Amino acid sequence: MQKVNHLSLITNMMQSILKRATVRKYKQEDVAPELLNELLSAAMRTQTMGNLQLYSVVVTRDEKMKQRLAPAHFGQPMVTGAPVVLTICADFRRTTRWCEERKADPGYDNLLSFINAASDALLFTQTFCNLAEDAGLGICYLGTTVYQPQQLVEILELPKLVMPVATLTVGWPDETPALSDRLPIEAIVHNETYRDYSADDIDRFYSPKEQLLENKHFVEINNKETLAQVFTDLRYTRRDNEALSQVLLDTLRRQGFLS
Amino acid sequence: MQKVNHLSLITNMMQSILKRATVRKYKQEDVAPELLNELLSAAMRTQTMGNLQLYSVVVTRDEKMKQRLAPAHFGQPMVTGAPVVLTICADFRRTTRWCEERKADPGYDNLLSFINAASDALLFTQTFCNLAEDAGLGICYLGTTVYQPQQLVEILELPKLVMPVATLTVGWPDETPALSDRLPIEAIVHNETYRDYSADDIDRFYSPKEQLLENKHFVEINNKETLAQVFTDLRYTRRDNEALSQVLLDTLRRQGFLS
Repeated sequence: MQKVNHLSLITNMMQSILKRATVRKYKQEDVAPELLNELLSAAMRTQTMGNLQLYSVVVTRDEKMKQRLAPAHFGQPMVTGAPVVLTICADFRRTTRWCEERKADPGYDNLLSFINAASDALLFTQTFCNLAEDAGLGICYLGTTVYQPQQLVEILELPKLVMPVATLTVGWPDETPALSDRLPIEAIVHNETYRDYSADDIDRFYSPKEQLLENKHFVEINNKETLAQVFTDLRYTRRDNEALSQVLLDTLRRQGFLS
Repeated sequence: MQKVNHLSLITNMMQSILKRATVRKYKQEDVAPELLNELLSAAMRTQTMGNLQLYSVVVTRDEKMKQRLAPAHFGQPMVTGAPVVLTICADFRRTTRWCEERKADPGYDNLLSFINAASDALLFTQTFCNLAEDAGLGICYLGTTVYQPQQLVEILELPKLVMPVATLTVGWPDETPALSDRLPIEAIVHNETYRDYSADDIDRFYSPKEQLLENKHFVEINNKETLAQVFTDLRYTRRDNEALSQVLLDTLRRQGFLS
């Protein structure tokens, strides 16, 4: 552990994280179960609520299972193309079973408990991502997990109080993607209180992104006027968001988190 | 980037994470703004939905602001004892402002969008934690953030579509806490489908935790019969969970995520 309090701190970890990028193409090569377990075990050092570890990981290696999972992720090719698919779940089932076996009355069938478990699961997920990428593995995080969670519940046979919150495809990289752009740090940091965004702020923070050739091309091929319209009209539309919110709510209810 | 596919991979990052522990006591010494920005900037490399970076960070350094935040975190002494408090928020406000300035119709006032933004925020939070701890800083993650979010909304002046999801107290460690126990990896990993927990599984996975002297002591001083009862009857009770779930729901509605 090194103590530093100045500019240009570059630890090994920072070097690893500064060069990371999402990998969607993988070599036809296995990820050894021992390596996976070692990375998952280390990720379990992540802080967790009351040290309850409110998460589970379902590991998919079977080809038929990947074929079944693929439609739940809108057919994204990483699901069948990766040697390993991990579905990380918010899990109050295990803790509830512990309570049942120990004369304790569990009260975790509610929204707060879901948020607690989902937080635990996502923090654990990200430490795993950082470790796996540092070990040379490529990762793709599938946001589709919360779009059709009811399909994942069925395929992975998730009982009540278990809810999928993140999916990772994991494998040895067969591509070297360029780093994607990010907003300037000023766009996300607020001092003491939230400073709302003026029209000038928006111009300053988003113009570099809008000027990127790939984004200009993206706007053009979609016949849109602005990059923001590509997001609102095509990628993440109000109509989809509202329909999928209903599915999410129904699945949370079905999984027992809204009793 | 090193490629390894065997047991006992110990990268620098893994060494750092394997020895981490939550730090609640901090030296009376500042965390330089430049260092904090460097760590936050590196954490922004974390994957994010559609590269929208659906999070904001409110940095609290002002003593009076810490005094105001403390009650929202049930008076936990880390809030006033740490040089820096970070409140990480799920944020669809900035993206919505971008859409408004770019003739696009944003549709992010719904539950799915909250979950998307909260996921982005928590993944970002954890990369920051990994980096900060690796740089020698001590971190405490305050789960109380989602218990009284309405107070944080008021104190930090969070507009609609901004919801606090995590708080970190950050400083130079003034204690060296022991590593806490964890469940065995078998307790959290499922192969292909979820394998529900038998009574035997529960005994095998939880007995080592229950046998720890500190936990036996914990049960004794609370006049309980089992460790699980300490959780259900005292730490995370049904009554509190249900009341706080209602507050959470009300705050999500007030912040515009349940329209």
